[in-house]
Amino acid sequence: MTAPTGHALPTAELFKDAFRAHPAGIAVLTAQGPEGPVGLTASSVSSVSAEPPVLAFSVSTASSSAAALVQADTLVVHLLGADQLGIARLFAARGADRFGGAVDWHPLPSGEPLLTDAPWALRCRILHRLPVGGSMILAAEVLSIEQGTDDNIAPLVYHNRSYHRLDERSLLG
Amino acid sequence: MTAPTGHALPTAELFKDAFRAHPAGIAVLTAQGPEGPVGLTASSVSSVSAEPPVLAFSVSTASSSAAALVQADTLVVHLLGADQLGIARLFAARGADRFGGAVDWHPLPSGEPLLTDAPWALRCRILHRLPVGGSMILAAEVLSIEQGTDDNIAPLVYHNRSYHRLDERSLLG
Repeated sequence: MTAPTGHALPTAELFKDAFRAHPAGIAVLTAQGPEGPVGLTASSVSSVSAEPPVLAFSVSTASSSAAALVQADTLVVHLLGADQLGIARLFAARGADRFGGAVDWHPLPSGEPLLTDAPWALRCRILHRLPVGGSMILAAEVLSIEQGTDDNIAPLVYHNRSYHRLDERSLLG
Repeated sequence: MTAPTGHALPTAELFKDAFRAHPAGIAVLTAQGPEGPVGLTASSVSSVSAEPPVLAFSVSTASSSAAALVQADTLVVHLLGADQLGIARLFAARGADRFGGAVDWHPLPSGEPLLTDAPWALRCRILHRLPVGGSMILAAEVLSIEQGTDDNIAPLVYHNRSYHRLDERSLLG
């Protein structure tokens, strides 16, 4: 910002431009809704506290999947790697049949859908729901963690409406 | 997760391992505290809503910088690119002299420190503070946005305690 452009009004477009420049990891959130399993792709999951283990995320509550998810008592947060790009895209696509067979999953004994290819799956109980405009910020306590068997997870990043894979070449010195 | 390891107890170490595998964009948060400017590097900033423009983040409140930041009325969220790796490291280093001259900054008319090399700077008012363990989740409304003049920002990503740069080579098809 060598020549500041001055304080602009925070238009929705400028705000979106700013966050298109802000990379994010990718997660798929699933829950057992009143009408069956629901799930969606989220780029807002972050760690809040390790002791107690708590994470946070936000979702727009416009979709029926999101509305069911934020009302659930418990959910599963799947942290995805680059090998799960297809899962990320399926759960981000509007109107897709997400549990119809395109992705391997099974219900946990407690009912939530577990995506069996996810490298990390964190079963959580929602602690707090904070409505903001048409979105909801949620904090969730982690009840249990399942780790996949693949020790060599290629990290998946969402940026400017595209997906990237981190590796040795992207590493900064 | 072809051979599930079963539900493990959510130990702090396993939780940290999971989030080490979850990439994140990098921001520096600054505010004018009661004893001068404060700032810290955060990997938890995400967009919540574009209309109204609201973002969220969380910080551990153990440090004096974080304690001053979460008590501020307004703050500036700087979204960083790979060219600002030095700034990210400076504001993440314990005990560093962050406003002593190593980084270009000036106070905004409203008092908060603006880091002049940041590609995006969002001045925000804190709307909600949600304490969770030794951390705080915050939601903040964006009051104004300054965009730097560099149109070619190389995205900066934090992953597994290292920094990465996204470019054409990291792009997935």
